[in-house]
Amino acid sequence: MEKKKVTRCCYSLCLLTSVGLNIYFVSNQYLKSEWKINQNKLSWSQEAAAEAEAVALISCSGHGRAYLDGLSDFVDGKPFCECNTCYGGHDCSIFSTDCAADVDSGDPLFLEPFWMQHAASSAVVVAGWHRMSYTFYDHSFVSQELENHIRRVHSIARNAITKGKYIIFGGGSTQLLGAAVYALSMNLSSPASVVAAAPAYPLYKSQTDFFQNTNFEYEGDSSLLKNSSKTKTNIIEFVTSPNNPDGNLREAVLKGASVRAIYDHAYYWPHFTAIPSPANEDIMIFTISKLTGHAGSRFRWAFVKDEDVYQNMQKYISVAEMGISREAQLRALKLMKAILQGNGTDIFDYAYKKMSDRWKKLSQIVSLSKRFTLQEIPPQFCNFFEKVRDHLQKRTQIAIQSSSRNIIGRAGSIFNVEDRHVRLTIKSDDDFNLSPHHLKKLVVTGEDGARTM
Amino acid sequence: MEKKKVTRCCYSLCLLTSVGLNIYFVSNQYLKSEWKINQNKLSWSQEAAAEAEAVALISCSGHGRAYLDGLSDFVDGKPFCECNTCYGGHDCSIFSTDCAADVDSGDPLFLEPFWMQHAASSAVVVAGWHRMSYTFYDHSFVSQELENHIRRVHSIARNAITKGKYIIFGGGSTQLLGAAVYALSMNLSSPASVVAAAPAYPLYKSQTDFFQNTNFEYEGDSSLLKNSSKTKTNIIEFVTSPNNPDGNLREAVLKGASVRAIYDHAYYWPHFTAIPSPANEDIMIFTISKLTGHAGSRFRWAFVKDEDVYQNMQKYISVAEMGISREAQLRALKLMKAILQGNGTDIFDYAYKKMSDRWKKLSQIVSLSKRFTLQEIPPQFCNFFEKVRDHLQKRTQIAIQSSSRNIIGRAGSIFNVEDRHVRLTIKSDDDFNLSPHHLKKLVVTGEDGARTM
Repeated sequence: MEKKKVTRCCYSLCLLTSVGLNIYFVSNQYLKSEWKINQNKLSWSQEAAAEAEAVALISCSGHGRAYLDGLSDFVDGKPFCECNTCYGGHDCSIFSTDCAADVDSGDPLFLEPFWMQHAASSAVVVAGWHRMSYTFYDHSFVSQELENHIRRVHSIARNAITKGKYIIFGGGSTQLLGAAVYALSMNLSSPASVVAAAPAYPLYKSQTDFFQNTNFEYEGDSSLLKNSSKTKTNIIEFVTSPNNPDGNLREAVLKGASVRAIYDHAYYWPHFTAIPSPANEDIMIFTISKLTGHAGSRFRWAFVKDEDVYQNMQKYISVAEMGISREAQLRALKLMKAILQGNGTDIFDYAYKKMSDRWKKLSQIVSLSKRFTLQEIPPQFCNFFEKVRDHLQKRTQIAIQSSSRNIIGRAGSIFNVEDRHVRLTIKSDDDFNLSPHHLKKLVVTGEDGARTM
Repeated sequence: MEKKKVTRCCYSLCLLTSVGLNIYFVSNQYLKSEWKINQNKLSWSQEAAAEAEAVALISCSGHGRAYLDGLSDFVDGKPFCECNTCYGGHDCSIFSTDCAADVDSGDPLFLEPFWMQHAASSAVVVAGWHRMSYTFYDHSFVSQELENHIRRVHSIARNAITKGKYIIFGGGSTQLLGAAVYALSMNLSSPASVVAAAPAYPLYKSQTDFFQNTNFEYEGDSSLLKNSSKTKTNIIEFVTSPNNPDGNLREAVLKGASVRAIYDHAYYWPHFTAIPSPANEDIMIFTISKLTGHAGSRFRWAFVKDEDVYQNMQKYISVAEMGISREAQLRALKLMKAILQGNGTDIFDYAYKKMSDRWKKLSQIVSLSKRFTLQEIPPQFCNFFEKVRDHLQKRTQIAIQSSSRNIIGRAGSIFNVEDRHVRLTIKSDDDFNLSPHHLKKLVVTGEDGARTM
């Protein structure tokens, strides 16, 4: 009898819970749609929406793009096509056979097709009166909604511990790096030495040198400092992980009480690397460029553990610019929301597959050569995909005698290593489709020894 | 007979010209609409458009605003109202009588109603794939279309000669100022002295001090330097015209071969001041904040005459941020296009009328007082309105004993003058409607001598 009562009780509980959940879901759906308007009853936004869709329909033969703010025809106001590398003509249909494949700069355009497939969820309408004020409602420069969504994306990607850390937004590649160096070099007994292990992203040096601040100076390769007999106090080490250009996961070279590290995790996403564990350093910088591909948004964020460092970085951003544009933040929020739809993994699955396919093709070509090699990084367990995976590189470091006439890469000396290394960064599908062709020619002529430059 | 022939000839010529013009206009209209799509046949942009319109319809009782990226209700996803000063409640309908009027910071929200009236022409849809690349088609960070439109706006406002000058875009209040100081202080024989005549915008000092560059140092008031017996080489003078806080039109205090001036013309628009003649200095900086009211866009531009200075400023912007976000530039373009509709003067007429009405109300109140005065600037001929007009000030400098408990202004000492001067900056209509009430109380109690703080 007792057993029957317990069973009945459990049944009732399950039923109640289930019904309660259903009521919640139904009302949620209903309430969510209550305040929304019928998409067929638009008013002031229609003109802007129609204009954007018309521009999107302009045919550039699949080898270019027309943009709302592109230079336009004087007569009909129609924006011109902006053609991909080696394509030209008014509709980008003319291919130039003599043209070099430009694999120098790092435009993350390989993600563009993803956003075209997600057109509806990634579009955003900016009203004329949107956020005119200097600050948000809480008097900060940071969108609380955007912050919340960024933390959720990190949680899904499993690439960073963000709990208990402050977040700062900065503009583009260097503002947050500059803010971090500034914050760490304040109130020190002597100017700080800024270092980074070679091969290193050249901007660390160029930026530090450029601003000529009395509080810090670029010293060079942290590996050299490690072995040096001279003792240095107050060291700030840039640690890029995965590293640019070679993609290796890294930790700080230097340790000690007077050493502070700034971790640049721009590429620490499942697109580019295995994620062995979520990053958890005191200062971690990420960028939207490498997450969504929107390099043009000029938007980065940093997680900072120490409150004083956070306040000083905020002060830097405040003096430098008084925050990042509200348009960039609104758009970033829409992109984060689009990423988080479903189970939040679509973009990582898409990007990984794309990179994987490209890597296989490139590997096949270079494997034909005895003169050129692709850099190898051993497979590693990935916490995100929950399996061992190859380390794909958006950038490929090819050991190469010299740059080819038909491939424009980025020489190793720019990264403080020998020029026998070249970094190739492949952008759009058109850029990718050009590269194997030229690479194959290079491999073949290199083997013949006849046309090596 | 000869005369008749000539008359017939003239008639024919006129008719041909007229018909030709007719054909042009008709085909222009037709061609312009040829590539556009029917506003009732939207697809991927509809969802974003509907969401934006729904948010715009959220009622905040006319005393607040809901935004697309505002914090939202967990259940239905509806953004909360963000209430104006002294208003509260979920729909901003609750007024707090004890609340102080905040007339401290300079949010240009007085222009918000203008943009709500121009909702259709000022909205812009940002597609998910819009301008993902680091650069524009010409490999620059600057939208050519936006540059062209900015030059046209200046042409209509008649406030600057832009022909023959380079243009640079920068982020927010300080980036371009910093870039200009940096560019002018390069390659000098000794560190430059940065000066500005009091009362001066405090950011010049705080920014220069903050970045602690080895090439320049803030020295203080240029007027003091003029009278000083010590000779200084390499001087960089910030000249704000109209000046912040007092609205006076200014020229550089210091002259000479080793003196370079940076003109901050943020307020040099017909909204705020008579335009006696178009500005034509070697470095002139403007901001969208004070033209359209979009302080949140963090967007400024500079016209630069000297090519070397321009290149160095570009380099600074490039290292600091690699250009301004593409979203901010797209939106700025839409706003410029909206301004340029019709004869391009609507925004100036609207803003002037609003400022004029506010000024009259404030003047009436303060005129009742023997203790407080409003700063006076004599009327001047305005090249834009083509008449003599009063110099309206968005900011009002009131000679006042001390700040009132119920009015939060900005003390004179912040601008390097005495605290008997207070700057009041009136933002939205709600802020304005609060201020006279408190100001009247202050004037009245001040006269009685009973409750002066």
